[in-house]
Amino acid sequence: MAEVSNKQVILREYVTGFPKESDLYVSSTATIKLKLSEPEHEGSSNKLVLVKNLYLSCDPYQRLLMERIEGLSSQPNSSFTPGSPIYGYGVAKVLDSGHPDLKAGDLVWGTTYWEEYSRIPAPEGLIKIQHTDVPLSYYTGILGMPGLTAYVGFYEICSPKKGEHVFISAAAGAVGQLVGQFAKLMGCYVVGSAGSKEKVDLLKNKLGFDEAFNYKEEADLNAAFKRYFPEGIDIYFENVGGKMLDAVLLNMRLHGRIAVCGMISQYNLDQAEGVTNLMHLVYKRIRLHGFSVRDHYHLHSKFVESMLPYIRQGKIVYMEDIVEGLESGPRALVGLFKGLNFGKQVVDISA
Amino acid sequence: MAEVSNKQVILREYVTGFPKESDLYVSSTATIKLKLSEPEHEGSSNKLVLVKNLYLSCDPYQRLLMERIEGLSSQPNSSFTPGSPIYGYGVAKVLDSGHPDLKAGDLVWGTTYWEEYSRIPAPEGLIKIQHTDVPLSYYTGILGMPGLTAYVGFYEICSPKKGEHVFISAAAGAVGQLVGQFAKLMGCYVVGSAGSKEKVDLLKNKLGFDEAFNYKEEADLNAAFKRYFPEGIDIYFENVGGKMLDAVLLNMRLHGRIAVCGMISQYNLDQAEGVTNLMHLVYKRIRLHGFSVRDHYHLHSKFVESMLPYIRQGKIVYMEDIVEGLESGPRALVGLFKGLNFGKQVVDISA
Repeated sequence: MAEVSNKQVILREYVTGFPKESDLYVSSTATIKLKLSEPEHEGSSNKLVLVKNLYLSCDPYQRLLMERIEGLSSQPNSSFTPGSPIYGYGVAKVLDSGHPDLKAGDLVWGTTYWEEYSRIPAPEGLIKIQHTDVPLSYYTGILGMPGLTAYVGFYEICSPKKGEHVFISAAAGAVGQLVGQFAKLMGCYVVGSAGSKEKVDLLKNKLGFDEAFNYKEEADLNAAFKRYFPEGIDIYFENVGGKMLDAVLLNMRLHGRIAVCGMISQYNLDQAEGVTNLMHLVYKRIRLHGFSVRDHYHLHSKFVESMLPYIRQGKIVYMEDIVEGLESGPRALVGLFKGLNFGKQVVDISA
Repeated sequence: MAEVSNKQVILREYVTGFPKESDLYVSSTATIKLKLSEPEHEGSSNKLVLVKNLYLSCDPYQRLLMERIEGLSSQPNSSFTPGSPIYGYGVAKVLDSGHPDLKAGDLVWGTTYWEEYSRIPAPEGLIKIQHTDVPLSYYTGILGMPGLTAYVGFYEICSPKKGEHVFISAAAGAVGQLVGQFAKLMGCYVVGSAGSKEKVDLLKNKLGFDEAFNYKEEADLNAAFKRYFPEGIDIYFENVGGKMLDAVLLNMRLHGRIAVCGMISQYNLDQAEGVTNLMHLVYKRIRLHGFSVRDHYHLHSKFVESMLPYIRQGKIVYMEDIVEGLESGPRALVGLFKGLNFGKQVVDISA
């Protein structure tokens, strides 16, 4: 069978410091057969699925994979390979399947490559999409990895109670915007931080946060927390790390909980900022809990079923920032680290 | 009624940096009546008890009280007052009581002052001692605050399982030596760090640790952990903070737990050392949990009953470093921060 061209987004070299658009490039040299070989198709042990990629997800953790990861035996991901296409979460349509649970025409989400067509193992890497009355891109966001991250991080890790005081950093991002809405649904007081006036307005006017502030305009973060949380913070949903975490620690309340989802402010630094206020973990008996959505995918179908009514009734909204075409991918991905995205950053390659 | 002399250990001034013996002084100018007044005795609302102090406990947290504590509304303690006697845990004998549950002759432990005789509220501050077939000084250590700290921190906060790999810093101290023995009783692999060859020998030869090392002889803590924990650390009982915590984070295993009991290495620094490896909380999904024994005193009597058989049968041993007389108190207390104590540091003023 003839091969077709398969455009790809390639990592040029391992990255140090802030990633640049030129650290990635789009290549049109690869080709791919749009059919599995006979042994692959007949359900060999690796259960390959051939997909056409539709939506690619830009997520902060991908920055960590742009450098050589060493000595992290517990790190679940391996680095991207320079000269090869990067990978991430995405939504795709099955073209051919060597797995009995998936057939041509099925829609799936999961780990895929930044290219037009991919060969992926299933079901380890792919989950079948059951509901298509919502935007398919939602499976890179509210109904995919970021959504389940927000759900698990808030409900399971933070053990929230009605009336508690919740702070969320990177609150206009793919995860933060959902944590804030979950916390409001539970009857909490919710404050978010973001990096622009437009995002602050979004949080307050569209997403229902009680308060929001632009961290770039706060020379003294501790003073900002004293203003927004005069009685202290019960729950902090941590997306940024560094100075923000240090100031939050000073303002936590007795028996507070901090869910550590990520630390985007630290990913581009040669040496992470030192956090100095950890004795407040003892003073206030705080639980600081790192988690990964990877431990919780067994909850995904239950999670989707519980979210769909809220989405359909407009009780939870989701902001997406969608760019078109693989060529727009590098700029969209590196833009995350300058906060250029307005909501969940997605690359639409369905055309 | 005549007053008697009441020797006291007084804080001279608020302390910065490492405390010196001269930051404290012994005064013989105070006097006290060895009987409560009639209204105090008849059970007025403050339920005063008059005690003769027998054993005074030297504990690292007392360093935190030697400076002015500001802006820590959740800090359970208030600073010591310059010109006044310091306070801490101790064992005492009741001389007179305004509380119906305590009577003259009873032995108690709890919060008392560094002086010969004290007037203390009960039962908030004092717990009656029920078992006197063990050394009374044990109620400043294995059967008192440090013992319950080790018990709660290990069993409740760390959720240990048989066979797990446990690391304990300040392992020859009042708390660490017990955590190590608890972990061995549970069937864990246990390594401790301490600051001298003698303490390392104690850990390995008397307290049953599998391994121990002198942190002062390890130029590269990360390398030390790679040597003692080639498969990583499941549980870290944190007593020291700073660089030790940073190196431990690099060597934690997936789903590890860290109980933060204290951070003695940081108490004398103007600015705490920054901890830079907190992203490992996410990589390995680690729970870092500050706790205080103050939240768990309801478990104390059950704890004592469960410990006594182990003590009587010699299945748990307890190392004490006892000095004689109030005059020895200042040197003993500040010695903690140089690691001069060999086991639980106690001041015996029972003579």
